[in-house]
Amino acid sequence: MAFSEFRPLDENSLIAYIKATPSLSSEISDSYDGLEIKEVGDGNLNFVYIVVAPSGSFVIKQALPYIRCIGESWPMTKERAYFEAVALKEHGGLCPQHVPQVYHFDRTMSLIGMRYLEPPHIILRKGLIAGIQYPLLAEHMSEYMARTLFYTSLLFRSTTEHKRAVAEFCGNVELCRLTEQVVFSDPYKVSEYNRWTSPYLDRDADAVREDNVLKLEVAELKSKFCERAQALIHGDLHTGSVMVTHDSTQVIDPEFAFYGPMGFDIGAFIGNLILAFFAQDGHAGQGNDRKIYKEWLLRTIEDTWNLFHQKFTALWDENKNGSGEAYLPAIYNNPELQKIVQEKYMKELFHDTLGFGAAKMIRRIVGVAHVEDFESIKEANIRAGCERRALELAKTLLKKRRDFVSIGEVISAMKQVQS
Amino acid sequence: MAFSEFRPLDENSLIAYIKATPSLSSEISDSYDGLEIKEVGDGNLNFVYIVVAPSGSFVIKQALPYIRCIGESWPMTKERAYFEAVALKEHGGLCPQHVPQVYHFDRTMSLIGMRYLEPPHIILRKGLIAGIQYPLLAEHMSEYMARTLFYTSLLFRSTTEHKRAVAEFCGNVELCRLTEQVVFSDPYKVSEYNRWTSPYLDRDADAVREDNVLKLEVAELKSKFCERAQALIHGDLHTGSVMVTHDSTQVIDPEFAFYGPMGFDIGAFIGNLILAFFAQDGHAGQGNDRKIYKEWLLRTIEDTWNLFHQKFTALWDENKNGSGEAYLPAIYNNPELQKIVQEKYMKELFHDTLGFGAAKMIRRIVGVAHVEDFESIKEANIRAGCERRALELAKTLLKKRRDFVSIGEVISAMKQVQS
Ligand SMILES: Nc1ncnc2c1ncn2[C@@H]1O[C@H](COP(=O)(O)OP(=O)(O)O)[C@@H](O)[C@H]1O
Ligand SMILES: Nc1ncnc2c1ncn2[C@@H]1O[C@H](COP(=O)(O)OP(=O)(O)O)[C@@H](O)[C@H]1O
Ligand SMILES: [Mg+2]
Ligand SMILES: [Mg+2]
Ligand SMILES: [Mg+2]
Ligand SMILES: [Mg+2]
Ligand SMILES: [Mg+2]
Repeated sequence: MAFSEFRPLDENSLIAYIKATPSLSSEISDSYDGLEIKEVGDGNLNFVYIVVAPSGSFVIKQALPYIRCIGESWPMTKERAYFEAVALKEHGGLCPQHVPQVYHFDRTMSLIGMRYLEPPHIILRKGLIAGIQYPLLAEHMSEYMARTLFYTSLLFRSTTEHKRAVAEFCGNVELCRLTEQVVFSDPYKVSEYNRWTSPYLDRDADAVREDNVLKLEVAELKSKFCERAQALIHGDLHTGSVMVTHDSTQVIDPEFAFYGPMGFDIGAFIGNLILAFFAQDGHAGQGNDRKIYKEWLLRTIEDTWNLFHQKFTALWDENKNGSGEAYLPAIYNNPELQKIVQEKYMKELFHDTLGFGAAKMIRRIVGVAHVEDFESIKEANIRAGCERRALELAKTLLKKRRDFVSIGEVISAMKQVQS
Repeated sequence: MAFSEFRPLDENSLIAYIKATPSLSSEISDSYDGLEIKEVGDGNLNFVYIVVAPSGSFVIKQALPYIRCIGESWPMTKERAYFEAVALKEHGGLCPQHVPQVYHFDRTMSLIGMRYLEPPHIILRKGLIAGIQYPLLAEHMSEYMARTLFYTSLLFRSTTEHKRAVAEFCGNVELCRLTEQVVFSDPYKVSEYNRWTSPYLDRDADAVREDNVLKLEVAELKSKFCERAQALIHGDLHTGSVMVTHDSTQVIDPEFAFYGPMGFDIGAFIGNLILAFFAQDGHAGQGNDRKIYKEWLLRTIEDTWNLFHQKFTALWDENKNGSGEAYLPAIYNNPELQKIVQEKYMKELFHDTLGFGAAKMIRRIVGVAHVEDFESIKEANIRAGCERRALELAKTLLKKRRDFVSIGEVISAMKQVQS
């Protein structure tokens, strides 16, 4: 075999690789006339090639043993591609409408071949910056999260299946550690990697590092992240890991997947929608004040949680006499008890969601990796204003999350900060 | 090799095994004159042989692929011996004063050779039934728990070490499932295995199965047990897993070990002391009303938690600039913050301890496996009275654990139920 040991591919060697790989060459009917290959990786970590021929197409994603946007000075196991492939297949099996199909995986090469999400698919974050409404977004994302999280939890699985899967994903520890560092640690200490819109936010960044209550709360969330194997989470579910059209919603890039707290995924998605909301004022102008768009974003945030709640508890009801071992039917088979059990579970999950969502927001404002929503606002003082409002809300959510009873109250808090 | 595949040993084949095993034969200087072997397994699961020669001694524990006290009809992996050996070595390394040394482990034979805890060592439970005071018990057990739990948690370990160890102990899933069933499930449903002092406790057993709040709370504890990898816990730390003399305290039998919630161990130990307390009235008589002994038990319970708290937080303080990744020094390095962080952590741990302790008490009264503390009370109506008081307290602890602020309040509640 031509590729019996790892090597980084480029546009040329990729063709040789495809020719040697039936599961890929068959996708383009083995015909290489008019084949076009383009590297498009705009993500932070990996290389992504789009392969389009008249007869078909696919995407090749390869992990190199370091973090792409930083370089070889920050090594990172290429085994992440393995966990990404396993998660894509697992989540894809549970929710095929919203996960691209995997055609091929090569562990030696840390390489995944998957469906090309053809235009007009774009990265959701870019759509949000452009002010495009996606009427099915909340519906689709709540469906994706409800199904992937429910079916990989002990609400559906036996302990035997659960512990086997937990053990396997313990292997993705390097990626977990990266999250621990950039989400739960660096923003709360002096770190060479941190940055923010300076000098505007200098005092805000200081305040984050000096806020004892905030640090107390973020420690609790970090413990949950490190210790609680609740479900197979995506692990990086921001708006840059979702590709969309008007009708289609596709979740990509689960290389951070492991058994962790469900609220980390739901919070990542909702937290990034909240960032998109606070960035809108920086995109307003030329006769578009983004007011209507902001209303749509608020509705989408509210709908995402409420639909998730509805779909998740519906799956629970449907499967309450199934093989899940958390709540045995012989014990929890009365409607009143089933109701209070679900209410308690969903309440904790809601508070986890707000806490993790807030932590993900904070790190995007004062940590190493920022979001295009804010970065694309050219005027620094306007950007800083947007970021400060998002930061203020995030701190409130993180510290007072247990006081929030519904997503409606979060929306109210957002409006209040905004005004 | 004579024992290249698994076979259950008996007194005779054990001699051949010892002769073929240098790490064992050397313990008795290879001299077999006057060698005595006695099977003493009074535990529920395994076979234990005491091997004593003039020149030395040891104990051999062998796991068979079923549960001893039930028989071959309840299969149970003999791989539990592997996890017991790993836990004995790990905990023994952290706290050698209170864990018997392992001389030999044979995975094929599911067989452990370890130090013989020679007389006057007896099982603590038997000492408690006999009304014997152990003045160092709280000191020793708090030391054992503080060291084993602290050093295997993220307060001391890196995430990398933690996830590797968690993954390995996921393999002990069959034993975890046994706990899930007999502690968290069976007592709350109709099960062929359940029993209780009938007819006296018939209504009490019904009440457990019909108590929605109790079932709601026990579900939360079960989730923690299944999902939260906080430290390498012993997993079966009742008073039958501790051997004592006046001066020595030795913890045996960690075959249920895995990465779980710390409160499960602390609760098991304290819960079983509480059972011992409520059993005392059944042992009173012949001029000994056990009043003084009950006072000692209450003091021991109080001291166990308070000393644990003190030792655990002292280890934390000592190691706060170490390699533990839960609370990085660069973030948590101020005394005020360190204090509130510890208070929060210890408060949650206290409530976990009460909850798990209560669950362990309940299962010993209405579940499959009872305790000799009660079983040795011959008069059924007296026994039932003792058990009912213990059950009443346990239900309060489980449901209202978050209202308890100190162990002193638990002692008060015990006195109140008792009077
Ligand atoms: N299946 C796909 N179809 C189309 N474009 C894709 C696909 N997968 C990735 N991309 C493009 O490549 C970019 C980087 O991919 P991603 O999986 O997020 O990599 P990284 O792990 O480096 O962030 C995405 O933002 C998207 O533009
Ligand atoms: N190291 C030892 N020294 C002396 N006696 C022991 C030792 N280990 C076990 N025993 C005796 O064997 C009994 C059963 O051992 P244990 O490890 O609790 O087995 P099981 O897993 O079957 O409960 C103990 O109650 C104790 O009496
Ligand atoms: Mg990406
Ligand atoms: Mg990625
Ligand atoms: Mg035992
Ligand atoms: Mg037990
Ligand atoms: Mg045992």
